[in-house]
Parts: sequence; structure tokens; C-alpha cells
Amino acid sequence: MPAPHVPVEIREFIEPELPPGGALLRTALSEVCGTDVHLWHGRLSGVPYPIIPGHVSTGTLEAVRGTLTDAEGRHLHEGDRVAFFDVHRTCGRCLACTAHRTPTRCPSRRVYGITDSAADGLFGGWAQKVYLEPGVVIARLPDGVSFESYIGGGCGLLTAVHIIERARLTLGDTVVVQGAGAVGMSAAALARKSGAGQVVVVGAPQSRLDLAKQMGADVVMNIDATPPAERLARVLDLTGGIGADVVIEAAGSARAFEEGLALARNGGAYVIAGHYTNVGDSTVNAHEHINRKHLDIRGCWGSEVGHFLRAIEVLARYHDEIPWHLIGARTFGLGQINDALSIAASMAVPKALVDPWSDA
Amino acid sequence: MPAPHVPVEIREFIEPELPPGGALLRTALSEVCGTDVHLWHGRLSGVPYPIIPGHVSTGTLEAVRGTLTDAEGRHLHEGDRVAFFDVHRTCGRCLACTAHRTPTRCPSRRVYGITDSAADGLFGGWAQKVYLEPGVVIARLPDGVSFESYIGGGCGLLTAVHIIERARLTLGDTVVVQGAGAVGMSAAALARKSGAGQVVVVGAPQSRLDLAKQMGADVVMNIDATPPAERLARVLDLTGGIGADVVIEAAGSARAFEEGLALARNGGAYVIAGHYTNVGDSTVNAHEHINRKHLDIRGCWGSEVGHFLRAIEVLARYHDEIPWHLIGARTFGLGQINDALSIAASMAVPKALVDPWSDA
Amino acid sequence: MPAPHVPVEIREFIEPELPPGGALLRTALSEVCGTDVHLWHGRLSGVPYPIIPGHVSTGTLEAVRGTLTDAEGRHLHEGDRVAFFDVHRTCGRCLACTAHRTPTRCPSRRVYGITDSAADGLFGGWAQKVYLEPGVVIARLPDGVSFESYIGGGCGLLTAVHIIERARLTLGDTVVVQGAGAVGMSAAALARKSGAGQVVVVGAPQSRLDLAKQMGADVVMNIDATPPAERLARVLDLTGGIGADVVIEAAGSARAFEEGLALARNGGAYVIAGHYTNVGDSTVNAHEHINRKHLDIRGCWGSEVGHFLRAIEVLARYHDEIPWHLIGARTFGLGQINDALSIAASMAVPKALVDPWSDA
Amino acid sequence: MPAPHVPVEIREFIEPELPPGGALLRTALSEVCGTDVHLWHGRLSGVPYPIIPGHVSTGTLEAVRGTLTDAEGRHLHEGDRVAFFDVHRTCGRCLACTAHRTPTRCPSRRVYGITDSAADGLFGGWAQKVYLEPGVVIARLPDGVSFESYIGGGCGLLTAVHIIERARLTLGDTVVVQGAGAVGMSAAALARKSGAGQVVVVGAPQSRLDLAKQMGADVVMNIDATPPAERLARVLDLTGGIGADVVIEAAGSARAFEEGLALARNGGAYVIAGHYTNVGDSTVNAHEHINRKHLDIRGCWGSEVGHFLRAIEVLARYHDEIPWHLIGARTFGLGQINDALSIAASMAVPKALVDPWSDA
Repeated sequence: MPAPHVPVEIREFIEPELPPGGALLRTALSEVCGTDVHLWHGRLSGVPYPIIPGHVSTGTLEAVRGTLTDAEGRHLHEGDRVAFFDVHRTCGRCLACTAHRTPTRCPSRRVYGITDSAADGLFGGWAQKVYLEPGVVIARLPDGVSFESYIGGGCGLLTAVHIIERARLTLGDTVVVQGAGAVGMSAAALARKSGAGQVVVVGAPQSRLDLAKQMGADVVMNIDATPPAERLARVLDLTGGIGADVVIEAAGSARAFEEGLALARNGGAYVIAGHYTNVGDSTVNAHEHINRKHLDIRGCWGSEVGHFLRAIEVLARYHDEIPWHLIGARTFGLGQINDALSIAASMAVPKALVDPWSDA
Repeated sequence: MPAPHVPVEIREFIEPELPPGGALLRTALSEVCGTDVHLWHGRLSGVPYPIIPGHVSTGTLEAVRGTLTDAEGRHLHEGDRVAFFDVHRTCGRCLACTAHRTPTRCPSRRVYGITDSAADGLFGGWAQKVYLEPGVVIARLPDGVSFESYIGGGCGLLTAVHIIERARLTLGDTVVVQGAGAVGMSAAALARKSGAGQVVVVGAPQSRLDLAKQMGADVVMNIDATPPAERLARVLDLTGGIGADVVIEAAGSARAFEEGLALARNGGAYVIAGHYTNVGDSTVNAHEHINRKHLDIRGCWGSEVGHFLRAIEVLARYHDEIPWHLIGARTFGLGQINDALSIAASMAVPKALVDPWSDA
Repeated sequence: MPAPHVPVEIREFIEPELPPGGALLRTALSEVCGTDVHLWHGRLSGVPYPIIPGHVSTGTLEAVRGTLTDAEGRHLHEGDRVAFFDVHRTCGRCLACTAHRTPTRCPSRRVYGITDSAADGLFGGWAQKVYLEPGVVIARLPDGVSFESYIGGGCGLLTAVHIIERARLTLGDTVVVQGAGAVGMSAAALARKSGAGQVVVVGAPQSRLDLAKQMGADVVMNIDATPPAERLARVLDLTGGIGADVVIEAAGSARAFEEGLALARNGGAYVIAGHYTNVGDSTVNAHEHINRKHLDIRGCWGSEVGHFLRAIEVLARYHDEIPWHLIGARTFGLGQINDALSIAASMAVPKALVDPWSDA
Repeated sequence: MPAPHVPVEIREFIEPELPPGGALLRTALSEVCGTDVHLWHGRLSGVPYPIIPGHVSTGTLEAVRGTLTDAEGRHLHEGDRVAFFDVHRTCGRCLACTAHRTPTRCPSRRVYGITDSAADGLFGGWAQKVYLEPGVVIARLPDGVSFESYIGGGCGLLTAVHIIERARLTLGDTVVVQGAGAVGMSAAALARKSGAGQVVVVGAPQSRLDLAKQMGADVVMNIDATPPAERLARVLDLTGGIGADVVIEAAGSARAFEEGLALARNGGAYVIAGHYTNVGDSTVNAHEHINRKHLDIRGCWGSEVGHFLRAIEVLARYHDEIPWHLIGARTFGLGQINDALSIAASMAVPKALVDPWSDA
């Protein structure tokens, strides 16, 4: 991706010399997620174009120099099926990393496919090979977890693990998820697996809502067919007039934020995770929706190493119960990458995949 | 107070027959707080006028029928100097009281001087005697705690105890308190006593800010003299460019809510406690101030029995270090009660007191 | 139960006059749980014998005087299938109820079938009718939840809801449950539904472990067949050498407590819920198992109204996925009640049920 | 320190070549704490003797190579008065560092003066110069904070910051601290500054208890003069018969652990921080002291970067209110280092200091 607003080009790079502790991944699948559309539209600041997009990717270790271990200290070998955590160079020393316990706000952190320039090397998954520099956290895919399942979850699953941690569900809670994209669907699935009493997904289009039900939603509401007042009435009806215990915003809309404040019950929790970019201002009545409601609103930014590792655990346990592989609806080769971006931008599929070895 | 917008009248009531477990308080001091001004201006809904205002009060037990005990099971006797928790009839059985752990949202709860009608009896402190019905939580004032100290803290202190609980301070935190009224001043004092590294109070007029410094503020900013951009710059300067760890909203202004979102650091906490009434909408950018900031916003409504009991502990320990008695700047007799309300409404004093036995 | 160590007798009582807000339950099923065996063996102090045992019970409302509502304020009527919370008269005013937020330690609280004397009335479920005094928390059984499911869960389910709250599971956690009784089995089921990665149950006999697998356990270990060292090795093997994230003690054995300390990982959590009575001292090395391990040990006593209400939500959602009805293996009439106690004492069944209208 | 049980020797080392990001500290003061006595007695396993002891130290930056910044990104320069965090090489990638959020249990972490061999370089404060390798966290001492104040706090202050975090005090809590050493005294001081209602220190000898009062204790009990039953009675008396809200174990004795379980109230918290080495087993009744008490026991191991940074904040705010400089009672030169160890071992002083440039 040479710059925003221009077509993505195929370029050749020299294979890197590996330093000790470095590795080379042969990419099996990478993803085209909403962030890549934002990158293409130039909505993120400070991006060092040209970049190789594709922050979350999976594949096979093609080359390893020296000793490489996973988070539990087990050795990794060439040929292993692995995934890696795209966020790297988190410093571990700054206030954000330490006293504040918000490593996702570390100023030194870099992200594959987003903040790493193509000039620095193969730091993105829309490439046949990805350079895993020393210190990148790598995990072996558990038996039974396919590349398709991992990448179907992808960055949305990692964010959803973080969301669920912030949501602190209690058994029997009614959870409303706003948004039926990759984040919303994984959040709905994990809310279901975390003991929610009922999971309601509010979004569009209908095809995604149908998939959300397969992922674990009990009730879905199509925002194209149901006006806001009716949605509120429905949630109140489902909760004995009380409102949702937990609302999860994964919609990225200023109106959704306003609506979520009304859907939550007194003393409930509202996790804001979909405002990855600036989509404008919301109008909020602090008396009615925050103070009197005794509401907790919790912003949720990015994900940490621990969320990546938890996501692997979740896939190990639930890969056959939750159809993550259905989220990645279509796969594209590098030759069709601009089509993939267009389709992702049109929201026709929840997520497009990239197989850089395919000529499809 | 026969109705909103009309003068308060002095009326005589028949002394109640005490049921077993009931008591009669001889009022020493009650308060005129912002809530009473709201009641006078008709800004609260569902108030059963006529009412006897004065929700927080203190005095001496004049009559006790049967056995009366405090929260620790110790007997209370006629002549004891006591305070009582104005919130009563919290049911302990509904979802709010139990599964949700938000008893301040219990639909059955009633509040002396606010939701109790004068037709029901002496349920307010702007009276020479107050009826303490069975079940009202009563605490003996510790030795050394004067009526003036207790009532100077008053409902603001109880709210501040709740705020500090919600704020979950860590040693060394920079705390910004918005508002220099009774709530803000007690919040500043308690933040200081809870291990804050620096406490900043933003408010007006200067006389209150001077008192806030006596209460424990390290830095004060006069909103009449310092424009918002300068206030933000000052907070950033005090925190190495990072922002406040905790912001406490005790100002009751839509603009204050917007400003507080900017003052908090990434991963910080913002407690909203001043929007007791509807003062209009705020404009919020969920991306910039909540999601990307990974911010926690916590509404804080009313106070619980536990906060009342903690407030008594706090007074026992700190009554000689924190000048709560200075918050209640002027005392009025019942004959001057309309003057007291006018002065409170003008914000000329942080809090006016009522001594119903005084003819001053 | 006239006294400890003597046979239970069948006695007739006069049907109570209902006060406003009171009700009479026609008992469908009550339970014989470990607590009843303790009562029979005289292991609990302060019990006002004679008592009518049966603390957790369910049935149909036979008579209601005045208005009766559930926790959400919905009216209850004669003929409704209901359950009630056996803990009543929790005061809501003492330190335990308020500032300490530990209502299960309220000194005023009373429990049906345990701390209520038969001299006071029909306060126990081993009776054809149970008196529900005003203030007792009553919930309608949701559609599809049978009496058998509710009572199969019974007091063990309520305790398990409390345990899971204390355990604060994170997605993917390995949870070890010590004990395969009614509490342990419900805890295993709820850990599974709360997102555990793997649930291990350690107990005996094999029949209970088989049922534990039906309830949701992934791995079971029979303590009669597997020595402690092997159990530890197995848990380490299941967790990459790290130990369990969460251990739940529901065994009531001094050795189990010692073993659980070794099974938990560094920084893990250990919930102690099975030591309802004194079974002797344990030997603990505070350096090795608490300090260096940075372990959290959390005692868990009784259950609160909120846990009862959550249990009803859990049954509503999961009654067809978790076979609680299989825990209550055998049902006895009042004529066979001493047999029921003997069988419960022998631990031949996880739980015996009482149908006071049956002549079986 | 060539090995356990032999005298410490003075050796000369070659001044290290600094890599980029490395620095050399001219030591002003280091400490002789209980850990050094343990090292001398060979009670810690895996120590790579010979070592240069002195894990916590402070001084002036003598040489800096390349760019050196503190945790807030501010540049550090030669001549700056600094302290550094002795724990280094925490990996930030393993389960302990990430998913478990227990970085003090990271298997890669190393500690100056304890786990770093003298063969590796100047990794200890009992030397005129200390090598600060790249990645070590360094903080400038705030204005007004003397070397004596910093080192008087020392590792005990860092541990105390961690303890207070684990203790989660509420305003007005009664806190009992077991142990009047460097950890206990700092814990008492910080409990006082965190809003405790009363702070009780239990320990010996009297001189330390006197200092504990200067640090902030309200009540002290000399264990040589007061038998355990009397201590329990006193704590009950101070708390209306209820017990301490929070107990902090900083005594390192098996009996202290047993006693602390009895001193805590129902639903209280007990932080175990003094069992740094194995001092034998304790006898615990899980029914009486954990389960029925609904107690939280929280192990507390080591300290994290964030605790170091918080400690600096605490010193900045409170250095003139809390006499940390009095904890380091006597200062020794390198020539007297064996005397310093003997005195520390005899517990005659709370802490001995080392000034490696002194010939005293």
C-alpha cells in the first residue's frame, strides 16, 4: 500500500537475514479487516507509508535462527503451524506499561501492517513471507485449530477477549452487543461462553445477524428494520423493564454510543470498543445516562499479549463449537487485493481473507 | 416547603407516638444544601409537597421507645449525640439491592426531607424534632466530633465517601476535583487522606478555593480567572504531560463533564457525581476521549448505609485535621429559612446551616 | 428433628394465620443435604431443636395474604410454581450487611430448616406446607425449569454461584474442583459455562465423577484410585507445568485444603467453600504456597439473595444443558425420612430428596 | 560475598565499557536488608556466588552512553541524582508477565545483588560504582528527597507499595501490621497515608515500635511484653469486637501467620508479605479462619516496576511527613561490611546502610 487512496501494488522484497531469535513465517492466511480499509482511506495518522498491510496473520515457520520459544518456554521449530501477536516493541518500562497497567497505550509499541513501514522489512501479512523479529510473541496453533478458524477470529477475536475482560460478566447477565462485524460477532460468542443469560446482537445486514446467531446470539435485531425506540423497547422487554446488564459497543457509530447508554440498566456496564477511528461527536446527558444510572463506561483500546494468548486458549477449547471460520467469508490472492479491499469497504462480507500464495 | 417557588412556611406538627424501635431526635443542626435549592426550584420530580426539608441532620436523642441499637449492636440511649442516615426503607430484596449491588437505585428507598411528605410526619431536619422510624440507621457521634463538624461534612461528605470508593485511588495519584462545593471539598479532603500524590481543585469563587486548600487541595484553579485551555495545560504540566490519574466531577455542569474527559489520562478514571439534576447535554467524542483513552467513566449515585458509617469513622479519625466545620459558613433559625435558601441559591456560601431552636 | 442423634419424628402442626405479605407454600420437593446430616450429628452450634429440616425447598403457592411480589416487583399468585431463599431476616443495617458487604455474616440472619425452631412455625421443607413470612425472597420458577431441576441444584447451586463470583474466572482458565458432591458438581458445571478452558474434578466415588462429567467436567480424578502425587502431576501436565488458574475447594477435608494449595499456579486463586464444619487443622507453608506463589485464597461463606436470583437465571438458561435433576438421585416420603438421612450420611447418593406428600 | 557463611571480601573490578543505553552509577548509599542476611546464611537457592550484594541503591549518574530516559521519557544526564529498579530482564512475553499479570513471577527476571553474579559485572550496590545495563528502569530523585530518605525506604518501601495495592484499603479501615522491620514500618506509614482509621503495629523491640509510631502507627504492641491472647483482645477492643479490616503480615514467622488469621474480621483481608524464606509450617483451621470468616488471604511477592515508580511519587509527596531516613539507622563503609551484616542479622537496627566511599 504505497499511500492512501491509491491502488495497492505488488512489490518484491529481498528475504531478510535473520538475527538470533528471529524467524520467517510462510504466510498461510492474513486478513482484510476494517483497519485496513481505514488505512486505505487515510483515516489513521502517523502511518509510515508505504506499508505491507495485514496485521493479523498465520502460517508455518519457514526458518528459525537460534532458539525460539513460545510464552510457556516451549521450543518452536521450522514447520510448526503458528500465529504471532502483531503488537511488538511494547517497552515494559514506561508508565503506561507499568504503573498504569495499560500497555496498549505504550508510546513505543508498534503494530505489524500498521505502524511498521515496508522500508523496514516484511512487517505485514499481505506478503508470502513475514519477518518475525526477536521478541515477537509466537504461539503454536493447537491441534484441531485450522488456519481458517484462527484468521476468522483474527484481530476481532483478540479485541473481543479484551472486551470480555473489561465487561466482567456475571452468570445470567443479559448482554447487548452493538455491531455485527468481526469484533461484535466474537464478542457475542465469548459473552455466550462466559455465562451470559441472553446475548442480543444489534446490527446489519441480515446475513451477518444470521451468522451472529450461529456464533451464539440468542436474539438479533436488524437496525435497518427496527427503529431505535423499538430496539429499546425490546431490550426492556427481555429484561423485565430493567435494561441490559452489559452493553458492548462494537459498531463504531456516534449514534450507537448514544443508544447504548439508554440500553444499559442502572449500575450496568458499557464497554466502548468500536470507536477505533473518529466518527464524530455524540450527545450525552450525564445526569440521565451516567450519574443517575450509576453506570460504568469502560473504553477498551487494542489488545495485549495476554489477550492473544487467551484467544489461543479459547480457540483450543471452542473451535468446534463456534464457527469462526465462517467469518472469513472470501479469500483473495495478492493479485485481487484491491478487490478484497473494495469488498471489505462495502461491508459485503464480515471479513475478507488474503492467501498470498493463491492466484485466485 | 409547601410547594416549589413559594416561600417556606413555619408550621406546627403534633409530636408522634413512637412505635417500638422508634425514636425522636432533638435537632441541633440541619443543612441547606444544593438539593434543597433544587427542591425549592421544583427541579426534582415526584416530590410529595408539602415536605419538611433537611435531609441530613444531627442532634440529641430526646426519646427512645424500646431497644435501639447502632450498626455494631450497641445500645443507644436518650441524651446520646447522634446522626442518622437519611436514606431509609431500602428494601434489601429487589434486584438493585441484591444481585446488582446498587442499593442507591432501589425503587423503594425513601429519603428524609426529599421523598417523605410532611403529611407522613416529621421526616426532615428543618424542624425542632425529627421522627426516626424503626429501621433508620443511627450512629453515635464519636468523642470530639462536634455537631458543626458532622453537619459541615453532611451529605457532601457521604457522597464523597462513595466517590472515593468508586475512584479506587492508588498511592501517588494526581486527582482533579471539578467543583468547590460541599461535595467537591470533601472529595478533595478524602482524596488527600487516601494517598493522592497531588489534589487539584477546579472551581469558584476564590473564597471556596481558599477553603479547599485548607481541606487538603494542593493546587486550585479559579474557573473565573483561568480559561479551559489553560486549565488543561496546567494539569498536563503537573503530570508530566500525561493527564490526571483520577478526575472527580462534582460541578454539575455539562461543560465540566466535557472538560473532565480531556483532563484524564489514558487508562484513568472519571467519577461523575455532580449531575444530580439535569443540566443539559454534553458533546462527547467517544473515539478521542473514551475508546482510545481506554478511560473508565463511573457514575456515582447517592450513598449507602456503609458510606454513612464510613463517614463517621472518617470524622472520628480526621475531625481535627480537616476543617469540615468551616463548610457550614452561616447558621439560620427557622424564621430566616427563606434567607438561608436564597443565600444557598446564590452560592455565596458553600453551605448554610439550620438551627431550628435558634431565633437568629 | 427433635434433637441430634435421635430419629426424626413426624409431627402435626396447626396451619399458620398469614399476616399481610405472608404466604403458604405447598411443598413439592425439599432436599436432604450434607447440612442436614451435620444437624443430625449435632455438629452445628446454636441450633434451636426441635427443628423442621429442609432449608432449600420448592413447590406451589397455596395461600397468599395481601400483595406478594418477586424481586423484580412482579405479583405472585396462588398456584404459582416458586422457590424461596431460605436465608431471611438479614438486617441490612449492621456493618456486615453494609460497610463490609458480607451479608452472609449478618448476626441477625436466620435460615429455614437450620436456625428456625419448630416452635416458631413451619420453617422447614420436610413438611407438607412451609410458612413464608413477610420479607422472604420468592421467585417464580421459569418455564421449563422443573421442581426436580431446581431442587437438584438446590443449596449446592446457590453456593456454586457464590463460588464462581469469588473465583473471577478468565476465559480459558483451567479450573480444578475438589469434591464431587452437590456443591462441587454445580461449581464444575458453572465453571464450564463461565468460559473455563478445562474443568478438572477431583473426588469420589466413580458414580459421582461420571455425573460430574455429564455436568461439564472435562477431566475427573478418582481420589480412591489416584494418589495425591499423581493428581498433582496430572494437573501440572494439563497446564504445561504451571498449575491450575483456579482451584475450588468443595470437599470439606483438611487434606484437600493442603492439596489445593499445591495445585494452584503462581498468582492463581483458591476458593475455600467446603469447610462448612470444622474437620480439623491443616498444615500450611506460608512461604511456599502463599507468599512466593502470590496466591489469592478466598473464603466463601453461604449465599446472598443475589446468588439465589442468579441461580434462577442460570436455571432458566441452562436447565436443558446441565442435568441438575440427576443430582437428586432418590426421593423419599416423610415416612422414610430416617432412611433418607442414613443414605445421605453414607454418601451413597449426591443428594436425597424429600417429597412430603409421597408415601413412598 | 564469595559464598555463604564466609566473610565478605573487598575486591577490585574493571570499570565496564558501556553499551548504548547503559550507564554507570556512582553509589551514594546501598542497604543491608534482611535479604542480604539470608544470602549470607545461604537460605536462598540458586544464587550465583560470588555476588556483589546490595539490591537497592541510589547515587549519581557518573557516565551515560547514548540516550537514557526515565519512565516518562525524560532524558537523564550525568550528574543526576537517581535510583534504579533492581529487578531487570523481566521478559514481558511469558504467561506470568502477560496473561497472569504477575511479572514478579517471571522466570527470566533477575535482581541486582541477588541473582546476578559478580562474574557478570558490577550488579550490586556494595560497590563504589554500579553498572546500569540497558533496560534497567531509572528514576530521578525528586527535589527534596535525600539519598537517606530513599534508601531508608529502600526495598521495604517498594514491597509496602505492593502490599498496600494488594490490601485495597477503604477509608476508615483498621489495619494491623505484623512486624516492625523495614517492610512493616513502611506498610504502616502507607496504610496511614491511604486513609486507614487506625494503624496497629505488632512487633519488637520497643525502639522499632517507637519509630513505627513516628512513621504513622496509632497503636503499637510489643510481642515481648504482650502475650498473643492479650493482643487479640486488644484488637477486638479497638474494633468493637469485630477484628481488623486488614491484616498485613511482614514478620516472617509461622506463628505470626496463625495469629493474623485470628486478628482479621469476617470478610476482611490478610496480605502475606513477610514469608520471603521458608520459616516452617503453620497450623490453620480452614473452617474457622478462612471459610466461615469469608476471609481473603493474598500472597504478595516482590515488586514490579510500577511499585518502584509509585514509591518515588510517594517519596516526592511525603518525604517531609514520614521519617524514612530514620529507618537506616547506621551507615558503614566497605571496610566494615561484615560488621554491618552482623548487626543486621542481630536485628539491632531496622536497617544498616552502606556508603562504599566512606572509610568509617
